[in-house]
Order: sequence, then structure tokens, then C-alpha cells
Amino acid sequence: MTDWKNPPRLFIPGPVKVNEDVLQQLARPTLGHRLKEYSQLHSETVQTLKKMLFTEQNVFLSTSSASGIWEASIRNCVGFDETVLCTCCGAFSDKWADVAKGCGRKVEQLKVDWGQPITPEMVDKELATGKYAAVTLVYNETSTGLTNPLREISKMMKQKYPDVLVFVDAVSAMAALPLHFDELGWDIAFASVQKAFAIPPGLAVAAVSNRALEKSKNVPNRGYYFDFQLWAKSDQKNQTLVTPNIPHIMALNYQCEKLLKEGMENVWSRHAHMGEFVRAWAREKFDLFCEEKYASNTLTTVKNTRGINVAETIKAIQQKHNTVFGNGYGKLKEQTFRIAHMGDITLDDLKELLAWIDDEIG
Amino acid sequence: MTDWKNPPRLFIPGPVKVNEDVLQQLARPTLGHRLKEYSQLHSETVQTLKKMLFTEQNVFLSTSSASGIWEASIRNCVGFDETVLCTCCGAFSDKWADVAKGCGRKVEQLKVDWGQPITPEMVDKELATGKYAAVTLVYNETSTGLTNPLREISKMMKQKYPDVLVFVDAVSAMAALPLHFDELGWDIAFASVQKAFAIPPGLAVAAVSNRALEKSKNVPNRGYYFDFQLWAKSDQKNQTLVTPNIPHIMALNYQCEKLLKEGMENVWSRHAHMGEFVRAWAREKFDLFCEEKYASNTLTTVKNTRGINVAETIKAIQQKHNTVFGNGYGKLKEQTFRIAHMGDITLDDLKELLAWIDDEIG
Repeated sequence: MTDWKNPPRLFIPGPVKVNEDVLQQLARPTLGHRLKEYSQLHSETVQTLKKMLFTEQNVFLSTSSASGIWEASIRNCVGFDETVLCTCCGAFSDKWADVAKGCGRKVEQLKVDWGQPITPEMVDKELATGKYAAVTLVYNETSTGLTNPLREISKMMKQKYPDVLVFVDAVSAMAALPLHFDELGWDIAFASVQKAFAIPPGLAVAAVSNRALEKSKNVPNRGYYFDFQLWAKSDQKNQTLVTPNIPHIMALNYQCEKLLKEGMENVWSRHAHMGEFVRAWAREKFDLFCEEKYASNTLTTVKNTRGINVAETIKAIQQKHNTVFGNGYGKLKEQTFRIAHMGDITLDDLKELLAWIDDEIG
Repeated sequence: MTDWKNPPRLFIPGPVKVNEDVLQQLARPTLGHRLKEYSQLHSETVQTLKKMLFTEQNVFLSTSSASGIWEASIRNCVGFDETVLCTCCGAFSDKWADVAKGCGRKVEQLKVDWGQPITPEMVDKELATGKYAAVTLVYNETSTGLTNPLREISKMMKQKYPDVLVFVDAVSAMAALPLHFDELGWDIAFASVQKAFAIPPGLAVAAVSNRALEKSKNVPNRGYYFDFQLWAKSDQKNQTLVTPNIPHIMALNYQCEKLLKEGMENVWSRHAHMGEFVRAWAREKFDLFCEEKYASNTLTTVKNTRGINVAETIKAIQQKHNTVFGNGYGKLKEQTFRIAHMGDITLDDLKELLAWIDDEIG
């Protein structure tokens, strides 16, 4: 019997497990969004995020899912006469290209098969045509569990195409995988909080470079809700343009403090360890969907080499343990399955889940 | 000393007081947004909202503030070759007109002085020109504490201009003032949850008529995040287009059940009683900013006839009682002040606050 008040423990790749102490942050007394208390919370949170993302530029809090920032990046920073290169290697990078088209922009897609990475060479070849104003990249493609070599792509772009804007969907990467916003010369990087921040969904974080902000001044028809110019103006007062999602910002403040105290290098190592652990199990019992080199440290997509019935296995574990992991995404359903290992998920959590899967597959 | 972890009790006109049992709904374990548990929560919540709003048409949940729906209404339902009439009687109705312009639409404004209502006669006169495709109306202008005669305007429009779309900002009205969506022939009505729903900010509710949905099919450049067509497609599966703000939807579910159990007529009466109580005090000690006939039952704007220093009075009460009410909005600062009486604020709460103000003004 489905009962949303007694939901399963989550190992799907987002929303992920949220600890009780984090949930309790959402239940704090609320604030007046134009009063000093909110500005204090806002300033504290944004300053902490800047440290986590290694940026001295802008960090905005958006009361939206991260997909709102797909739209915001295009609306604010790509002119109607410009062309954006959307690199596509899975469901979410594909969707970003669709959003860019829906915003009436000229879009070209660099497509690879699901499970394959976007490489610096591919991007270089496209940018050499000289026709692009911006590139969209997905750091960690949640549909396939693939991490693109963004450090290498960014270095190449910084050296050879410094004028092309770099937009990065860091949804299942931020707060889990290395992210040096300023050093890599990125212009926009964003994530929603229900992934590695380990908070329930309802808020997105976006780092925006000064030059992206400058560029947005001259892009027409930016609308209102996602207008970077209006965002920046409010941010100067440590406020947001619209009434923000205050409970989630309180929880974000709490999580960011904790992560910064742990140290970002340690946070990244912790995720690498979890990734290695799940991959070792996957290689032994099944196989990896992505080449090891590109396999994500925040979720593992397992290739269903034993032909198990994935849906039935998930159902059985839900019935016995009130716990779920993810089937393959879209066309990868049954051919693969996905296990999240990010945020507040621990090695012990993973051991428990993998033992239950072992029990099921015999 | 400002301390966001120990914020003042709120009598500002939003965010308003949130009860502890409601805050605890935010802290429930979170759900997978593509799993059955979410669909169950979604369906329950939307069905309850339809009863509350007296509609059999569409109700959507938007992870945004209500100002996102200012933009959504224009982007989805007003063509680039059409003109929208924005009725303006305060800061928020003014802002909606700005948003419509920012979306590149042709906008004409019907303006009255702040504190004055928009009347059926004024709207009739404008619509008689035959040049408008849609009208924006604000049910309750939070900046002035004025309730527009929307029932009368709607009846007139239904009779004389049935083809003109009716968009209603019901931000500080929904769940407090009578709202019969289908009967009044409205096309869009929306609110955010930090007003009369008495939930912290982070979510908006939007009722959308079938004809508005139909119309949106042919309006170009709707974008992605606020696209009604995509919203409706996801809603058929009891899901949302993007990962939704699940904690707030859980709290909304809780509040809507409670309101429906109380009965909407009783909810409206309760607000009318609170309004009368605060107005009686205001008339005795100061005066009302709006004509009694149009004075809101969700907040009272008091005319500062005694020339008190409003900011200092608020500060004194904050220091003594960790409680705040609202100064006048924008240009009405110091000339007026605002006291919210909606949602889970009670007569006892109001008696306490008014006694403290009495103490200060002597």
C-alpha cells in the first residue's frame, strides 16, 4: 500500500537520503524576507557557498529546481542572433538543448551515445568553426552515471576559446565532485539541493561569473523570475528578487557549514571512496555501464549483465525493507539500474543495500 | 542583535505566523518525485485545492513564488500581437504590469491612486474599446490593504466581455476571502503559501481554466519552467514538470485538509471577524487608510493620523516582545502601518499585539 507518510528510504539518484537533523532545519521558525534576519541568513549562506565553489564572483539562490537555471542561463546569456552548442550525452543534457530551443535560440547539438563522454577533442573541433557564443556542459549525467572530463574541457576552452561562455549543469556534482569555478573559467554552474547537498527538493544554487552578468545586460526579453540583473540588484541587499524558499535556505546553511568544516578535499574523497566501493561490487556481480575512467562518484549505473528483472528486484526490496534504488533511466530501463552514493548516504548504508540486492539476485 | 535562529514573531503581511505543527510537516521524510508516494501526495493535495477554490478545472503546484505566476500568466496566455490591460492600485499590481512589459507584451495600465479600488465601471470603460485580450486584477493589494470588488468586476466581464481572459493575483486572498473560480469565470488565479495558507514561503498554487490552457498551445516562446502545456502533461501523471518542493507540498496538504474540514464559509467568516476587530481598534486609535467598504480582511493598513514614529514603534516592540508588524509599503512608509490577520493568526494573537502597540503610543 502506497503511503506517502511512510515513504521508502531512498537510494535513487535524487532526491537522496536526508538526515533527521537536516529535516529539522526546515522546521525552524520562518523569517520576514525583507527583514534583517533574512539578510543575515542569506549573507552567511552565500559566503559559505562561495568558499565551497572556490569563487569570488556571484552565487545566487533560486526558488526553483535546477532546471529553472537551464532556462535562466539561456535567457540571460545567449542572444537571439547567437548560437549555443549543447553537448548531449544523456537525458538531462538532451533536455537542456530542448529548453534552449524552447527559448527561441539557435542551438546545435554535439551528441554522443548514452554512456559515452564528451571529450575536449570533440568540443575543440566544434568550437573551431567559430560560430558559438556559449557551450552547455553536464558535469555528471544523472541518467547514465557518467562524469564528463570537465577539467580538461575547461582548460582547453580557456586556452583556445576564452570568449565562449561556459555553462555547467553540476546538478549531481556540486558538493561531491571537485569544482573550482573561478580557476576553470566557468560562467554559470548550478545544482539543486536534493542531490549531494542532501536536502529535500525545492531550491537551486547558481554561481554566475561577472562577465556572464555583464553580458545579460544586453540580452533582451529576459523575463522577470529568472532575470540575473534583477537577481544581482537584490543580492546587493542580501535579499532575493522574489520571496525565497526560506526553510530550504536554512537547511542549506546548515549543510554548507558542515561540508566546509569537513573540508572540500575530504568531501570529494568521501564520495570517491563510496564510488569505488559500489563499483567494486558492480564489477564483481554485474558490470559497469560506463567506462571506469568516466564512472561517477555520486551514482553508479550498473549494467544488468545477469538479465535480472530490475523492477521486480526493486519491488521486492521495497516490500521487505521499505527501501528503493533506481531503475535505468528512460531507454536504459531494465538494461541498467542506478544506485546513488552522495550527500549523507554512508558506506554502511550502501553495504546494507548491496547485501539486500545480493539476497534477491541469489 | 540580529539572530536568524531566534526570529521575531510575525505580524507583517507575509510571511505570516506558522504554527509548530505545520512547521513539522516540512520535516517529514522526503519522497522520490517520480515514485508512487509523490503521486499520491500530489493527487490528494490538488483535489483538496480544487474543492477549496470551487473549481473542476486545473490546479497546478509551482516551485516558485507567486511572482513566477505573474510571468507564467503572460508568457502562456497573451500573444505578442495582443494587448493586456493591467489594473494598478498599489505596488504589486504595478509590478505585474512591469513583468508583462518585461515579457515583451503590449501593456496598457488602468491606474488609480494607492488605496483606491478598481471598479467594474472603470474596467468596463476600458474593455469597451475592444482592444484587450486579457485583464490582470489583484484581489487583495498587500501594499495598501485594499480588497478590490472582484465579484462585481467578474460578473460584469462575464456578461459583457466573455472572451477577455481574467487573470487574478489572489496572493493575500486565497484561503481567506471568498473565491469561486469556475462561477466567476476566472482564467488564472494564484497565491503563494506564505500568506493565508500559513506555511513558510517556497511554493505557489495556480488555478488555470481549460480555455487558458487551450490558448497557451498557440502562444510562442513560452519557455520551459513555466510552460502550462508541459505542466498539464505532467499533472496527468500526478507529477510536476520539474522536481517539486516536496516539503512545502506536504505542509500544504496538511493545511488544506484542515481548512476544508473547517469549511470555507467558516474560514472566510473567521477572517472577516479578525478584520473587523483590527479595524475597530484602528478607527478608535488612528484611522483606516482605505475606505471601510474596500478594507481587507487579511491585513489592515492603518493611517498614521497621530504621527507616531512607526519605525521606532516597531523597533521598540521587537526589543520588548520579539514581535514585528509592518511599516507602510514603499511611499506609504510612516504614513501608514500594516497588521496582518490571516492564516493561523488568532484573535488572541491580535489582542496581544494591539495591547503592545497601545502601550507604546500611550
